[in-house]
Amino acid sequence: MEQDTITAISTPLGEGAIAIVRLSGDHAITIANKIFQGQDLVEVSSHTIHYGKIIDPIKEEIIEEVMISVMRAPKTFTKEDVVEINCHGGIASVNRLLELVLANGARLAEPGEFTKRAFLNGRIDLSQAEAVMDLIRAKTDKAMNVALKQLDGKLSTLVNQLRQKLIETVAHVEVNIDYPEYDDVEEMSNHMLREKTEEVYREVEQLLSMAKQGKILREGIATAIIGRPNVGKSSLLNALVQETKAIVTDIPGTTRDVIEEYVNIRGIPLRLVDTAGIRETEDIVEKIGVERSRQALKQADLILLVLNNGEELTEEDRKLFEAIKDLEYIVIVNKTDLPTKLDRQEVEQLAGKQKVITTALIEDKGIDALEAAISDTFFEGELDSGDLSYVSNVRHIQLLQQTLKALDDAKDAIDANMPIDLVQIDVTRAWELLGEIVGDTVQDSLIDQLFSQFCLGK
Amino acid sequence: MEQDTITAISTPLGEGAIAIVRLSGDHAITIANKIFQGQDLVEVSSHTIHYGKIIDPIKEEIIEEVMISVMRAPKTFTKEDVVEINCHGGIASVNRLLELVLANGARLAEPGEFTKRAFLNGRIDLSQAEAVMDLIRAKTDKAMNVALKQLDGKLSTLVNQLRQKLIETVAHVEVNIDYPEYDDVEEMSNHMLREKTEEVYREVEQLLSMAKQGKILREGIATAIIGRPNVGKSSLLNALVQETKAIVTDIPGTTRDVIEEYVNIRGIPLRLVDTAGIRETEDIVEKIGVERSRQALKQADLILLVLNNGEELTEEDRKLFEAIKDLEYIVIVNKTDLPTKLDRQEVEQLAGKQKVITTALIEDKGIDALEAAISDTFFEGELDSGDLSYVSNVRHIQLLQQTLKALDDAKDAIDANMPIDLVQIDVTRAWELLGEIVGDTVQDSLIDQLFSQFCLGK
Repeated sequence: MEQDTITAISTPLGEGAIAIVRLSGDHAITIANKIFQGQDLVEVSSHTIHYGKIIDPIKEEIIEEVMISVMRAPKTFTKEDVVEINCHGGIASVNRLLELVLANGARLAEPGEFTKRAFLNGRIDLSQAEAVMDLIRAKTDKAMNVALKQLDGKLSTLVNQLRQKLIETVAHVEVNIDYPEYDDVEEMSNHMLREKTEEVYREVEQLLSMAKQGKILREGIATAIIGRPNVGKSSLLNALVQETKAIVTDIPGTTRDVIEEYVNIRGIPLRLVDTAGIRETEDIVEKIGVERSRQALKQADLILLVLNNGEELTEEDRKLFEAIKDLEYIVIVNKTDLPTKLDRQEVEQLAGKQKVITTALIEDKGIDALEAAISDTFFEGELDSGDLSYVSNVRHIQLLQQTLKALDDAKDAIDANMPIDLVQIDVTRAWELLGEIVGDTVQDSLIDQLFSQFCLGK
Repeated sequence: MEQDTITAISTPLGEGAIAIVRLSGDHAITIANKIFQGQDLVEVSSHTIHYGKIIDPIKEEIIEEVMISVMRAPKTFTKEDVVEINCHGGIASVNRLLELVLANGARLAEPGEFTKRAFLNGRIDLSQAEAVMDLIRAKTDKAMNVALKQLDGKLSTLVNQLRQKLIETVAHVEVNIDYPEYDDVEEMSNHMLREKTEEVYREVEQLLSMAKQGKILREGIATAIIGRPNVGKSSLLNALVQETKAIVTDIPGTTRDVIEEYVNIRGIPLRLVDTAGIRETEDIVEKIGVERSRQALKQADLILLVLNNGEELTEEDRKLFEAIKDLEYIVIVNKTDLPTKLDRQEVEQLAGKQKVITTALIEDKGIDALEAAISDTFFEGELDSGDLSYVSNVRHIQLLQQTLKALDDAKDAIDANMPIDLVQIDVTRAWELLGEIVGDTVQDSLIDQLFSQFCLGK
């Protein structure tokens, strides 16, 4: 099947040293060749790089000085012919180059379309394609590790093994039914079905048990910092953000704006909710109020409630406790550098089973304890992404949950001595649900929707 | 001379499909090889691309799935061995890769250090190196064209020709003096010196005459929009910005944030000063005042003074005219859709030789006339970057002006019948000043300073 040739800018937009315009499709090389002054790209070997100039063939104008990479099918990202044009990374420059490529026969790629082709052409399965995007969006090393394992096909292998077990069981039972050699064939089939179903059930359950951690690693813990004015919310925010910058990057002044929203606590990405609100309003006591803090709670997985050790507990503090009583939170008794006026016993009582830690943020004290508390809340003991977290994606989690349900139905049917072909329907449904994870039994509309969440040029 | 191996992220930071970590230096290939699982990069041919995995050799952990380009000296950007590691473009991902490269023996490159090496290793001269940065920063196609010609060495060629003329003249005169065969040698030498000096003078003058346009194309026209509240400043800003987006890029939702500060008027980049101020304050009449507008004037090359056709001229309007009377401005009589109450004769009188145009921005009328007026103000007739604008850089302009001065001194010395070796000093100074443009006679401190303005990874 001939595919049209797609193109997009594959580097982030902005002033940088290098920008890449990527082409993929049957005409990728001939289109690039039309606008390239240098070697004849149609003749060059695959996986080679060529210096030259991009010329507008109509205006006969030099557009750019470039390095062109030619990669022929099938050993490419998309399994199609791929050309990457590396140019000087200016915005006007790369836009003009893209326009020229479009004018010479390529079509602008949709978001994720390169990866979609890699999937449709069978180079990667759906869970691997999703891992590509997770890798780009990963906020910490541990989140990257989960995505990398998934990209490497580890999740796919596991899921495919489970599917194999189910399909073999179904096939075996069918053979037994069609060629009954013994009288107790039904009982034996039931027995085997039940055994295999339970085996797969346990394995899915195990995958799911680590999924909560995987999801947190992937998406971050939405965290809200709340408290009365002047208890130290800004100091806490700054302390957390400062910590992160040292971990995430050593390059001065580069990534700060981009990642400011996330902080990296022992490998767990904390997504700070409404940080702008805190920064703006901390000094404007009358503007902040409790109401604003309450807003932030709705989106949060974790709440950090800051109290002032140097003041008695106020009615507002108690209202905050009340507002978060059903949520996951950590109490931070700040300003332990001041003489204690806060009734710690009342605080412990209000906090119940939730953790209470003490800090003197102005003296940089207590951040370690806070980080340990956060880490313990979500991951008991040491966080290890080693071999456990294969599942991080909400779509996968939901499919695994539905698989459990289908297997449960199958077990119930067996227990109720339902006819075997009814049991098979449930088992087959489980097989199909697992297939949706790797994209084997998935609908086109879902595929379109998944890839549309990708970034341009990927 | 062995150079240490430098590395940096060469793509803009952000979530993109591809990010590049670039290495340059004697150990670029061996360092990459240490962390690469795939082909032996030391053995592969130059200018080839290899798929594989990046492995942390200590933790024995997979870090990324990459494409590695190997380019051996001397046919590379820096004339050194260059390796480019293309990885999935996530921020955490590329930072981790960079850290690993640093841990395995490379040093973090300073801003512009790759280009600096290209210069120090003799691949490009200084004006070409500066063009690399201009190309990245170019805001319009025409600005790019100026940079591209400079990168292509067109300015260098011109400057080197002028230097050649000067040095040959000096040499010729010296020979004449050392081996006088005729009595009138001094007169002849004087005559030739004067002729050649004048010839070079005229050519430098011609280069400079187009430099103002070049500088505008490169840096944009700093433009302030001023006027009383509610005359239509925001509408004007929006009309200009909207116009630009269609021209600069066809890619939905990508470059807007980045280029919003610049608008592209018939190929001329307008840099809008204090646009945020206009947006914020247009609705808050009491906050804006004339004072704020006055602030913006200090930085502006061009002022757009907006008046309301539907109201009589106020004392504030007259004060604005007074404030800008020595500056370049265009008067925009807006709201011609309203009944005219503005005294147009008085406006024309106050504007003097400056242009007055009329608009009804609410009906999208008059933007064309405004664009024509802006274009005419800075470029008489059609703007043509074809073969004329070679000089755009303030440093080059200043050096050319100093060259003119030195040649002027030489001419004066000749006219005053000064001894020929005194004339030669002035001519030699002109030769040296031109040499600074191409980096031939330039000081190390200047080189360091110039390259420090580059972006990281270039």
